[in-house]
Amino acid sequence: MGKINTAAIVGGTHGNEFSGIYLLKKWDQSPELISRKTFSTETLFGNPNGYRDNKRYLDCDLNRQFTEKDLADPQLMNYEQSRAKAINQHLGPKGDPRIDLVIDLHNTTSNMGPTLILLQLDAFNTQLAAYLLEKMSEAIIVVEDQVAMEDHFFLCSIGKQGLIVEIGPQPQSVLRQDVLDWMDEMTQHILDFVDLFNEKSLPELPASFTAYRYHETLKLPMDEAGERIGMVHKSIQDADFTLLKNGDPIFTLFTGEEVCWQGDYEAYPHFINEAAYYDNNLAMSLAKKVEIDVIR
Amino acid sequence: MGKINTAAIVGGTHGNEFSGIYLLKKWDQSPELISRKTFSTETLFGNPNGYRDNKRYLDCDLNRQFTEKDLADPQLMNYEQSRAKAINQHLGPKGDPRIDLVIDLHNTTSNMGPTLILLQLDAFNTQLAAYLLEKMSEAIIVVEDQVAMEDHFFLCSIGKQGLIVEIGPQPQSVLRQDVLDWMDEMTQHILDFVDLFNEKSLPELPASFTAYRYHETLKLPMDEAGERIGMVHKSIQDADFTLLKNGDPIFTLFTGEEVCWQGDYEAYPHFINEAAYYDNNLAMSLAKKVEIDVIR
Repeated sequence: MGKINTAAIVGGTHGNEFSGIYLLKKWDQSPELISRKTFSTETLFGNPNGYRDNKRYLDCDLNRQFTEKDLADPQLMNYEQSRAKAINQHLGPKGDPRIDLVIDLHNTTSNMGPTLILLQLDAFNTQLAAYLLEKMSEAIIVVEDQVAMEDHFFLCSIGKQGLIVEIGPQPQSVLRQDVLDWMDEMTQHILDFVDLFNEKSLPELPASFTAYRYHETLKLPMDEAGERIGMVHKSIQDADFTLLKNGDPIFTLFTGEEVCWQGDYEAYPHFINEAAYYDNNLAMSLAKKVEIDVIR
Repeated sequence: MGKINTAAIVGGTHGNEFSGIYLLKKWDQSPELISRKTFSTETLFGNPNGYRDNKRYLDCDLNRQFTEKDLADPQLMNYEQSRAKAINQHLGPKGDPRIDLVIDLHNTTSNMGPTLILLQLDAFNTQLAAYLLEKMSEAIIVVEDQVAMEDHFFLCSIGKQGLIVEIGPQPQSVLRQDVLDWMDEMTQHILDFVDLFNEKSLPELPASFTAYRYHETLKLPMDEAGERIGMVHKSIQDADFTLLKNGDPIFTLFTGEEVCWQGDYEAYPHFINEAAYYDNNLAMSLAKKVEIDVIR
């Protein structure tokens, strides 16, 4: 990865995640807050009609529409599918994009704190993660590199580099100052890092850092008809990035019965009880804690 | 107030407040859980189409449609206005209802814990509040008796007695076990109380209890065009029912400036930063802490 010349900050990819939407309003009024010496920065409102209707999306999840295959499919015509093509034309096109770095701002109802999600582990991303952890002690690094960038369906995958800033807990359609402040701070650190990376003037970084690598997704308990018959156990509610071991309680059925996790590894749940994942009956993601080498 | 012969438990008056909806499913499968010796109990799903669409409401807030005037107005014809008339026909009619006690189950995104909202302060309600506080140490009593029952627009005002069970914090469209358990427990205590009240076999109750009486509603900071220019200050986020004094910070403008509360009484904020109140730019309710005599 050479120099980053162009960056785009996207807010409101989900219309009811308010932090990014309000930060964009602020930055559009005061662009100097996100401008840096060595590259240009622009902003984009991902799903304005979702925001207008106070919904995550109108027809389908915008942040699942950015595989190369779907972007090239003219039969995908609903609002978010059309919006994805327009965003790809404006910031991309994916594979040979105008924008070098896409930073996509998200909220979660889960207690994930200020989390940065990386989609690949190259020099740029590993140095960024190590830098961020030095600057922001509460920050958490999640790695979702289970598929190649071209097959990723996330909006930020259309940049040469793509990052997801994921801050919670915040209910949908609410603005919490603590969450807004975290998102602002993390974004500022990322922009500072890019400047230093471009100038080859980064401070001394550690040789490695701790991260959480996505491993699998757990579904809520359901009966044969697909009806939910249980919920996330109160003992792991809000316990994102806390160790889950084989035999620990994970769900409570509506009958009162406890369900324990059966697993052969040390798991770190996150996105626990995220509101938006009920559509697909997803209860949480599980990660493995890993030590990642910083690539020079 | 004589004997309670008929009770109705309403869930899902707001379609994205999940605790009541799931408790109704459980109780409809096991009606013995809500049956008591001295009165009959039935359940009602307030806004099933709101739940289907995962929204608080389709056209307007169902829990604001129950004044006698609006119920009698044939020009009010949208989904929730029609649903209100149907519910009034089924449980009411307001003023001379079939149902003696309506218990309406709600969630809030605010950190209000297990709260019981009373609409009037007669023997039944004050004895219930004193009983509940003895049985459930975390319970909070809010009094909203600023208007007479006939002018109240809440669904539960169509019963001879009406109660709102209001439990949080829970994001919209999420089911938290801690919140579900609180709602279940509070409802069971209310049903137990009614049985004892009917049998005139209540235990010894204290002479008075502490409650929070609604006083006023604060709006979010807005500019002249009605655009929000600030948010709830992080120091009072989640601090429902904590003392607010003149000069305490209450809002943070998006410029970073702090706004302090100007008030000449000791206020107890609640419904702080409730998601559903953004429609009307409401930031929180303020109550006064009061000692209420139990009426014999």
